[in-house]
Amino acid sequence: MSNGSQHIAVFGPGLMGASLLMALRAKRPEAKLSVWARRDEAVAEVMRRGLADSASADAAETIRGADVAVLCVPVDRMAEVAAAIAPHIRADALVTDVGSTKEKLVSRLENDFAANRNFVGSHPMCGSDESGLDAARADLYEGALCVVCPTSASRPELISRAEELWKSVGARVTQLSPADHDAAAAAASHVPHVAAAALVELMGRERPEFRELCATGFRDTTRVAAGSPDLWSAILAENADKTAAALSKLEAILAGYREAMVKADRQQMTKRLAAAAETRAEIFRRT
Amino acid sequence: MSNGSQHIAVFGPGLMGASLLMALRAKRPEAKLSVWARRDEAVAEVMRRGLADSASADAAETIRGADVAVLCVPVDRMAEVAAAIAPHIRADALVTDVGSTKEKLVSRLENDFAANRNFVGSHPMCGSDESGLDAARADLYEGALCVVCPTSASRPELISRAEELWKSVGARVTQLSPADHDAAAAAASHVPHVAAAALVELMGRERPEFRELCATGFRDTTRVAAGSPDLWSAILAENADKTAAALSKLEAILAGYREAMVKADRQQMTKRLAAAAETRAEIFRRT
Repeated sequence: MSNGSQHIAVFGPGLMGASLLMALRAKRPEAKLSVWARRDEAVAEVMRRGLADSASADAAETIRGADVAVLCVPVDRMAEVAAAIAPHIRADALVTDVGSTKEKLVSRLENDFAANRNFVGSHPMCGSDESGLDAARADLYEGALCVVCPTSASRPELISRAEELWKSVGARVTQLSPADHDAAAAAASHVPHVAAAALVELMGRERPEFRELCATGFRDTTRVAAGSPDLWSAILAENADKTAAALSKLEAILAGYREAMVKADRQQMTKRLAAAAETRAEIFRRT
Repeated sequence: MSNGSQHIAVFGPGLMGASLLMALRAKRPEAKLSVWARRDEAVAEVMRRGLADSASADAAETIRGADVAVLCVPVDRMAEVAAAIAPHIRADALVTDVGSTKEKLVSRLENDFAANRNFVGSHPMCGSDESGLDAARADLYEGALCVVCPTSASRPELISRAEELWKSVGARVTQLSPADHDAAAAAASHVPHVAAAALVELMGRERPEFRELCATGFRDTTRVAAGSPDLWSAILAENADKTAAALSKLEAILAGYREAMVKADRQQMTKRLAAAAETRAEIFRRT
């Protein structure tokens, strides 16, 4: 069987899952697509939109015969879906996911699929402050980075199959261990999310007429704070240790700026701001 | 004389000053425009681009006969420009500025122009992470908010003239006292700038391969950190008291998130994130 005609089962037709289905439809028309949704209305909506060949609220039915299963539910819902599909999965199938945290999740899901070592974790980095089926689009994965997170327990052919899946919808692929992924994601995504929400909370405590001064800078700096509170509290809870440690470092950096202001140490401020501007340019020069 | 044919003198043809000249040229073709630049090369460049009727490195020459003077130099350069023009200004002329901080600056400039109470402070909120003449554009002020900051010493006809100036280039105008402006700007702009730079500094301390995870969220959250280090350290130094006080509150909010993570208090995290998402939607609903 060529990769093109794989049976791919997607669990959860939200932003990530429905966008994956749309991308697979467009780029791999021979693939057989099945989808599981928790609610009957979502099952009906998926079929109405023609996103998959079959849709069901029965996970066992969705996984039957699949070469690849992609768990696209929030990180705190992964366990129940895994439990529902594990007894019915083919021994040679890949199970992967789109969870924004990896260390604890990979450990649990490797355990759920231990019998045949089906699981290899993935994190395609193309979330948005939008969520749900209505926000889905066929090009969500195009050019995005997908971090694949194998461990010593991962089967090499399933690592390859995961990488091929994400490349087939246009993503760039890199590998990090689950622990390194979570440390990197804390600094690149989870702490910035908390900082954005904290900046909004700070502004919210000021007098209402002060809000008028929130211009494009404030809008961009806090954009991610518009994201789903449930989704994000689940992410922060999953990556609590590394995010809390990074937050503590951020607080120390902010205190450093504050002390420089109190001491009127303009040289120190300029130096730190110049270093940050340079680091940021380096980070985005590669893209 | 109608407002349209005023003589407007602009000091400093950077992003703000050159954009103001371009907007005035487009919207008020009868206005006489003179410009002062510190460097001879900038004087020549302004004339080469046809941005003004006259350009000079001599501030006395630029201010002669002007109805309106707009100080578009960095906040730490305002004093020298004010000193150069004060002896030559018409008694009935308006002097205003585009400085991002107001309380100390307005106090100093009111003092520099005390003889005829020429000064009324302004802060058009349309800065950018870009700066300089090359970044200037005719629509920079279009739809932007301009905060005009009168005090008990301000002459009513000059407050009106300042408001008319900004409206004539497409800005919306609001009034705040200089102290209120600075408190609002600390929360809406100066603390977000420090937070963005601090997030970059945090990421810069991580292993280089972790930087690959910086995606659109990180890019937006830290965009303002690309701004000019010199310009911003001057702003933070000018508004040090209020920015330091607001930073201290931000640190406390971040510590609250960190404690919720350490205690695995997901309910607390969800509640704070939901309140922030709601506040942010309220802030931008009005625009």
